[in-house]
Amino acid sequence: MPDDQPDLAAFADLDLGRAARRGYPEAVYCEGKTPDQVGSIAAAVRARPDVVTLFTRAGPGHAEAVRRELPDAHHDTDAALLAWPPEPPAPTGGLVVVVAAGTSDLPVAREALQTARYLGRPTELVVDVGVAGLHRVLGRLDLLRRARAVVVAAGMDGALPSVVAGLVAVPVVALPTSVGYGAAFGGLAPLLAMLNACAPGVAVVNIDNGYGAGHLAAQIAAHIAAPPPAGER
Amino acid sequence: MPDDQPDLAAFADLDLGRAARRGYPEAVYCEGKTPDQVGSIAAAVRARPDVVTLFTRAGPGHAEAVRRELPDAHHDTDAALLAWPPEPPAPTGGLVVVVAAGTSDLPVAREALQTARYLGRPTELVVDVGVAGLHRVLGRLDLLRRARAVVVAAGMDGALPSVVAGLVAVPVVALPTSVGYGAAFGGLAPLLAMLNACAPGVAVVNIDNGYGAGHLAAQIAAHIAAPPPAGER
Amino acid sequence: MPDDQPDLAAFADLDLGRAARRGYPEAVYCEGKTPDQVGSIAAAVRARPDVVTLFTRAGPGHAEAVRRELPDAHHDTDAALLAWPPEPPAPTGGLVVVVAAGTSDLPVAREALQTARYLGRPTELVVDVGVAGLHRVLGRLDLLRRARAVVVAAGMDGALPSVVAGLVAVPVVALPTSVGYGAAFGGLAPLLAMLNACAPGVAVVNIDNGYGAGHLAAQIAAHIAAPPPAGER
Amino acid sequence: MPDDQPDLAAFADLDLGRAARRGYPEAVYCEGKTPDQVGSIAAAVRARPDVVTLFTRAGPGHAEAVRRELPDAHHDTDAALLAWPPEPPAPTGGLVVVVAAGTSDLPVAREALQTARYLGRPTELVVDVGVAGLHRVLGRLDLLRRARAVVVAAGMDGALPSVVAGLVAVPVVALPTSVGYGAAFGGLAPLLAMLNACAPGVAVVNIDNGYGAGHLAAQIAAHIAAPPPAGER
Amino acid sequence: MPDDQPDLAAFADLDLGRAARRGYPEAVYCEGKTPDQVGSIAAAVRARPDVVTLFTRAGPGHAEAVRRELPDAHHDTDAALLAWPPEPPAPTGGLVVVVAAGTSDLPVAREALQTARYLGRPTELVVDVGVAGLHRVLGRLDLLRRARAVVVAAGMDGALPSVVAGLVAVPVVALPTSVGYGAAFGGLAPLLAMLNACAPGVAVVNIDNGYGAGHLAAQIAAHIAAPPPAGER
Amino acid sequence: MPDDQPDLAAFADLDLGRAARRGYPEAVYCEGKTPDQVGSIAAAVRARPDVVTLFTRAGPGHAEAVRRELPDAHHDTDAALLAWPPEPPAPTGGLVVVVAAGTSDLPVAREALQTARYLGRPTELVVDVGVAGLHRVLGRLDLLRRARAVVVAAGMDGALPSVVAGLVAVPVVALPTSVGYGAAFGGLAPLLAMLNACAPGVAVVNIDNGYGAGHLAAQIAAHIAAPPPAGER
Amino acid sequence: MPDDQPDLAAFADLDLGRAARRGYPEAVYCEGKTPDQVGSIAAAVRARPDVVTLFTRAGPGHAEAVRRELPDAHHDTDAALLAWPPEPPAPTGGLVVVVAAGTSDLPVAREALQTARYLGRPTELVVDVGVAGLHRVLGRLDLLRRARAVVVAAGMDGALPSVVAGLVAVPVVALPTSVGYGAAFGGLAPLLAMLNACAPGVAVVNIDNGYGAGHLAAQIAAHIAAPPPAGER
Amino acid sequence: MPDDQPDLAAFADLDLGRAARRGYPEAVYCEGKTPDQVGSIAAAVRARPDVVTLFTRAGPGHAEAVRRELPDAHHDTDAALLAWPPEPPAPTGGLVVVVAAGTSDLPVAREALQTARYLGRPTELVVDVGVAGLHRVLGRLDLLRRARAVVVAAGMDGALPSVVAGLVAVPVVALPTSVGYGAAFGGLAPLLAMLNACAPGVAVVNIDNGYGAGHLAAQIAAHIAAPPPAGER
Repeated sequence: MPDDQPDLAAFADLDLGRAARRGYPEAVYCEGKTPDQVGSIAAAVRARPDVVTLFTRAGPGHAEAVRRELPDAHHDTDAALLAWPPEPPAPTGGLVVVVAAGTSDLPVAREALQTARYLGRPTELVVDVGVAGLHRVLGRLDLLRRARAVVVAAGMDGALPSVVAGLVAVPVVALPTSVGYGAAFGGLAPLLAMLNACAPGVAVVNIDNGYGAGHLAAQIAAHIAAPPPAGER
Repeated sequence: MPDDQPDLAAFADLDLGRAARRGYPEAVYCEGKTPDQVGSIAAAVRARPDVVTLFTRAGPGHAEAVRRELPDAHHDTDAALLAWPPEPPAPTGGLVVVVAAGTSDLPVAREALQTARYLGRPTELVVDVGVAGLHRVLGRLDLLRRARAVVVAAGMDGALPSVVAGLVAVPVVALPTSVGYGAAFGGLAPLLAMLNACAPGVAVVNIDNGYGAGHLAAQIAAHIAAPPPAGER
Repeated sequence: MPDDQPDLAAFADLDLGRAARRGYPEAVYCEGKTPDQVGSIAAAVRARPDVVTLFTRAGPGHAEAVRRELPDAHHDTDAALLAWPPEPPAPTGGLVVVVAAGTSDLPVAREALQTARYLGRPTELVVDVGVAGLHRVLGRLDLLRRARAVVVAAGMDGALPSVVAGLVAVPVVALPTSVGYGAAFGGLAPLLAMLNACAPGVAVVNIDNGYGAGHLAAQIAAHIAAPPPAGER
Repeated sequence: MPDDQPDLAAFADLDLGRAARRGYPEAVYCEGKTPDQVGSIAAAVRARPDVVTLFTRAGPGHAEAVRRELPDAHHDTDAALLAWPPEPPAPTGGLVVVVAAGTSDLPVAREALQTARYLGRPTELVVDVGVAGLHRVLGRLDLLRRARAVVVAAGMDGALPSVVAGLVAVPVVALPTSVGYGAAFGGLAPLLAMLNACAPGVAVVNIDNGYGAGHLAAQIAAHIAAPPPAGER
Repeated sequence: MPDDQPDLAAFADLDLGRAARRGYPEAVYCEGKTPDQVGSIAAAVRARPDVVTLFTRAGPGHAEAVRRELPDAHHDTDAALLAWPPEPPAPTGGLVVVVAAGTSDLPVAREALQTARYLGRPTELVVDVGVAGLHRVLGRLDLLRRARAVVVAAGMDGALPSVVAGLVAVPVVALPTSVGYGAAFGGLAPLLAMLNACAPGVAVVNIDNGYGAGHLAAQIAAHIAAPPPAGER
Repeated sequence: MPDDQPDLAAFADLDLGRAARRGYPEAVYCEGKTPDQVGSIAAAVRARPDVVTLFTRAGPGHAEAVRRELPDAHHDTDAALLAWPPEPPAPTGGLVVVVAAGTSDLPVAREALQTARYLGRPTELVVDVGVAGLHRVLGRLDLLRRARAVVVAAGMDGALPSVVAGLVAVPVVALPTSVGYGAAFGGLAPLLAMLNACAPGVAVVNIDNGYGAGHLAAQIAAHIAAPPPAGER
Repeated sequence: MPDDQPDLAAFADLDLGRAARRGYPEAVYCEGKTPDQVGSIAAAVRARPDVVTLFTRAGPGHAEAVRRELPDAHHDTDAALLAWPPEPPAPTGGLVVVVAAGTSDLPVAREALQTARYLGRPTELVVDVGVAGLHRVLGRLDLLRRARAVVVAAGMDGALPSVVAGLVAVPVVALPTSVGYGAAFGGLAPLLAMLNACAPGVAVVNIDNGYGAGHLAAQIAAHIAAPPPAGER
Repeated sequence: MPDDQPDLAAFADLDLGRAARRGYPEAVYCEGKTPDQVGSIAAAVRARPDVVTLFTRAGPGHAEAVRRELPDAHHDTDAALLAWPPEPPAPTGGLVVVVAAGTSDLPVAREALQTARYLGRPTELVVDVGVAGLHRVLGRLDLLRRARAVVVAAGMDGALPSVVAGLVAVPVVALPTSVGYGAAFGGLAPLLAMLNACAPGVAVVNIDNGYGAGHLAAQIAAHIAAPPPAGER
């Protein structure tokens, strides 16, 4: 650790043990942290290759600070995300399909994809299937119906999750993005549309929160030994 | 006119001549007017059977006041609308199709339908074709594609106008309704979704404003002798 | 069917076949429908005891109309919900635990519980465990950790889903309610809090939408044969 | 195509066949796409001079990327729009008049104008006719009344569409702009005013969405063989 | 005073001396007060016929309580306002013209009119002159230009104050009303439009606050001996 | 005019005759205009020294463009305003006092002051008299009571106009500013507070709209020969 | 307990032990609970006269249910609050002064007063001291400066807490009320004003939450043995 | 003072006497002031080392201007705050504990801490104790329970103040921060959550207003000789 890095305890209380116990990665949300702070966390992480650590919303300065401590970290620049150790776990559980309604929704969709991948799920990506051209989404029905969970990232009218939820039997994680003209109000329009989806089975997360969407989808698609039904307990 | 009816000039400035010149009905928005005021207007209208007059948002008291002056007025109770003279004009211009996404959107959709009809358009009504069941809307494609203008009334996620606009070549008038759970916020959610429709060709009107939607669709579908192209003027 | 019941085709397009194929109940949202319309739907449903039908947001008039056609329908008055056939399916899949933060959240929580039950999941209810008394929620940890999905209904600060999601490994369905003082703004405050939950794994649904929450939880907890991992397809 | 251009299929699903079939241009919304992505699309478009392609919201980097692939593309820098092939189709259908309430509304108004032109309509532009000086708009009545559709771009109080709709018999496409002091709230004030226009016949589109307004106006003013009236079908 | 009337000091601190000194009436906002409380105030006022007292937003119960103490109070039921002593002062100062855009804006407009009248201004009322029919407002230009202050009450798009302010040289008091379809949001739409009026000289007051508008107009139109210009002080 | 200046008619319809007739300056709102456009207007204005022209919200580029055409224009950099001819008219009418609640409100307050000055009113400025220190505002009561109109610029809680309006008999023009911590929401908080001022006589203008506030105050304080009272017309 | 009362455990988890340990009353928020549920709680409370229990937001039905179980409970109908045991504790700690800006704010102010009283503080009430008449609040300075905490309930512009906080050295609890004309938006206007108070020392609580304000003030004014300063621990 | 510094009286009315009398520091909010203005204030302050002066929200330019006049001023760059004289007063009163939910909340939390320190309270800082990991906050219970006032800074769901208020008996000052994904809406989400805290005893301040939170906490924790209880006055 360089001399000028701040003391970790002064600004964060890392608990890698808990991450290990719960079976999920530790995630470091970089926005609002200084590169030096992120670097200190990366240095602390280096001793624990048994825990996957994700650095999300990482700007160039954050990325550089991480790579200085963890040179082999995987860096998806489109998703503004770094992961270490660089190799995701061997995929288990059901398939997570991530759908991006338009090209502008791709960065957020990729963040969801990488998160699900590093939580250990098999994943697939589908792009540019907005509701204005229904044939596009209908053309991917086979893939969508193989999924155990579908993430749908969409801005503007946020209509795609409703449509997809009407076509599949599994939960759809609706991920509103801040893409669109003025009255999209930074993602408010698709957020409200998704909360009001007229098909049941839609789980909404925060605007542009690809990490949250991917995490939720991975949890839904995880293989969990179900407890016995109520009557037998 | 009964003695107790208020003097028209004290609260309204009716201009039936203008309505006749523009070729569109006079519309009386009853909400916020007293039944007596509406009755006075109905009395004034009686002398002008050459102008179609619509009474919109007419509660039971308003309707009674109108029927007292214009006993043969047509009353669509679902749409809370009265029309006089009762017979709509012979249909001219292109077809106006009105689509209601769900049963709860019907009153507003019917207001749009009646308005277009009394402006002189041929009309058709389609019900219960929400995006959660795409086969329903796809099953009505033939009818939709015969229209010169389509009105789509929808609450909740307001996704249907986007889908319809992607399927037809004519303008879609998007009519948000105040139907839905809490975060529909009285129609705000579908309104924003429609303003952000990802297909072009969507014209948005006010929440629950069936009259406005029907009027606009009737204007779009009117047969108007087009002016010569720019180069020839 | 009584003579005065409206013609079903004029306001709804029931598709019980689809409900059967997808394996989920048909749900009739009663708010905004007249009791007569709901009665017509109930009459149509009577011929299909193979499909579970839920009538949600059913006021006294709606309930009476349903019971006239389906006298043995199960009626949970607290949840404003009727179900027919009255017996839920034998429970399969993982346990769904529904948590109500306060007494005032109970009606919405019960709607979620009944929905999950009639979709065929084993269910448990936990009441009055707000974050102001952490010992209450900590005292139910054993039950919470047996669940495959947890629904948390909360108004006011909407803090409970964050806390629960930090304690369990499965998805938490966050259900904001319209309970609270002025600046709760009809459920907006807990809705925003839940969308911003600082623990991952939180799936948000619409304000007071117990049906949607229960449905989503039931889908998450369903036993679905997972597709083979990506590499083997 | 340069080596460093990304693979089109990885981020977009271009469907020029559909554009050709519907008779409308393909539009590429550049905001949120990288210049490289836009360049890849331009390269793909080059093979299809039979379809008009519009690049909207194109910043300098986007414009350069387009011009590298399509050197003769028409570039309206004020409107931040490029069109290819550079010549618009021969004008057909009715006249589209575009009105800009103030100088600051011009960029958005020009985007509408160009869109209508490249969809094949004859067009005219009117500038600086705000409602604070009624003589200005009244002085252009002759032109306004020759139109088959009028686009009115206005910020601030958004009052002009109401005034114009009261003066003409054809639909007015109301285009709110984000021009104004603080309480314009980025276009919210004119948007709400337009949705509440007290004259019927006003079709509202999204804030600053000149493309959408021009497209809608062009559809309204298109010569479409009207279907036979209802009675004859 | 009846026995059951509450003690004035327990809920109000009436200061009729200040009202007399400032030269303006004392106003009692009845909404949120019980009829008994309003009655106690009326009883206290009876001893001071030298001060004009207005009771605004007075429901039937409030009115009855006032009339019990001040039987000759003037009661304008449309405006929900009572005044005592019943005769307004002899008019002084400039003319206040109150304009109601539509019939539904009349109650609020009348409250403004009565307030200006009881503050001692000559007043005139103009009704039903919305911007959708410009000829109506243009036909009243002579009267408008005789005013020292104009109050314009309008709901919906709130466009009329902009238009009027462009036609007269004196201040326009813009009074938004809660009249309109859904997206008027209880008067928010006209309020924002008025704050963004593109003509200078527009003074905005609260939604439905006819009292405030009339008071402000009366102050503007008052004959006040102007202080000497800056250089001579 | 330099060769590269755009043609005025292409983007603006200047009407200096109207400005002269109404007796008020022409105002050019620079935000959203290019420096070249502003320069073209300045060039056109040069021929009309009989009309005062104000350039408001003028950034450095706009100012330079104005000064190139009108080298002796007065430039108040704090207020981001230029005026030409540079000398204001000899003061007539009543005194306008402009109050800035805090130092951060000064730029907007100065814009109001200059506007009133160039409309021909005598003016005075008072600074830093927030309600948290009542002695400050009470210490300026003499000056405030000499005014015919008072402008009060305030951000944060926007409480000062209420307090001032309770102390003077003339209208208070309330000018909300965008100064403050997060929940000021860009001036929304003081705007709402001012619209809800508990003292009558408060006229609200748009957030940060110093020009509008100064213009309104100047109109209120103008010497206008009042029309005869109603009875004598 | 009557037979028809619901089983407490089914809807609430009462923890009177905790209330006793923390030294504060147990509070039952009645809104959203049925009278029967409230009655069950009252029955459970009867066994614990050592804990003060408050029933807040109690409508007539709730009050009746409480009085059936606890006939001697104190009922303040203005404040919609019941307390049991009926006698408040002997007052300890500093004085809490509750100020109501206007008569309409009294019910909420009284709820705050009663809460502070039943938490054991000495209390005083001041009414009708809005900022439009500064002499009223200045006339109560002696009392205000004797307080250890001041609660200020105000609607409309919410300006009073700023003014009071500038006059006293102790914390001011700002309690926004839903009193006011349209743009008060149910208390949003005073809430925002209070959050932006330009004097430090203002603690804001929820709209109309008199209970919360009184509780907070009582905690501030409690005699708590302060821990030793940091250096000595 | 350098020649180019503006004249203090032209933009501010410093009242150090009042600050001294109230016993609290003078605070200079730098945002919206020019560095030159801040420098002038610093120069004026230099003569009064008996009053603590805080410069809050000081950017680099502001800091430099302060240090030029007061070279030994204490500068906490994280908190963007300067204090002079540099030594805080000897701590008196109860302990103030400041809690930062996450690392990104630290700058605002430190502003609160420094403010409380310079108002003379003993202080402690706790970091990274979000509700997603309850063990963290439970692990600091001893410290929290030693406090006389606790400040809790949190963004995102703003849930921590509710949890802490349920664990301690003293007031909690809830400080919302603008940290979070899209639907945090710049701090609106945690602000609303805190206003709706389900535990009593929560005092809310403005978004990111660390100064206000620290000041309020210091006032609560001050040793104030309490006035005698009500009965003895």
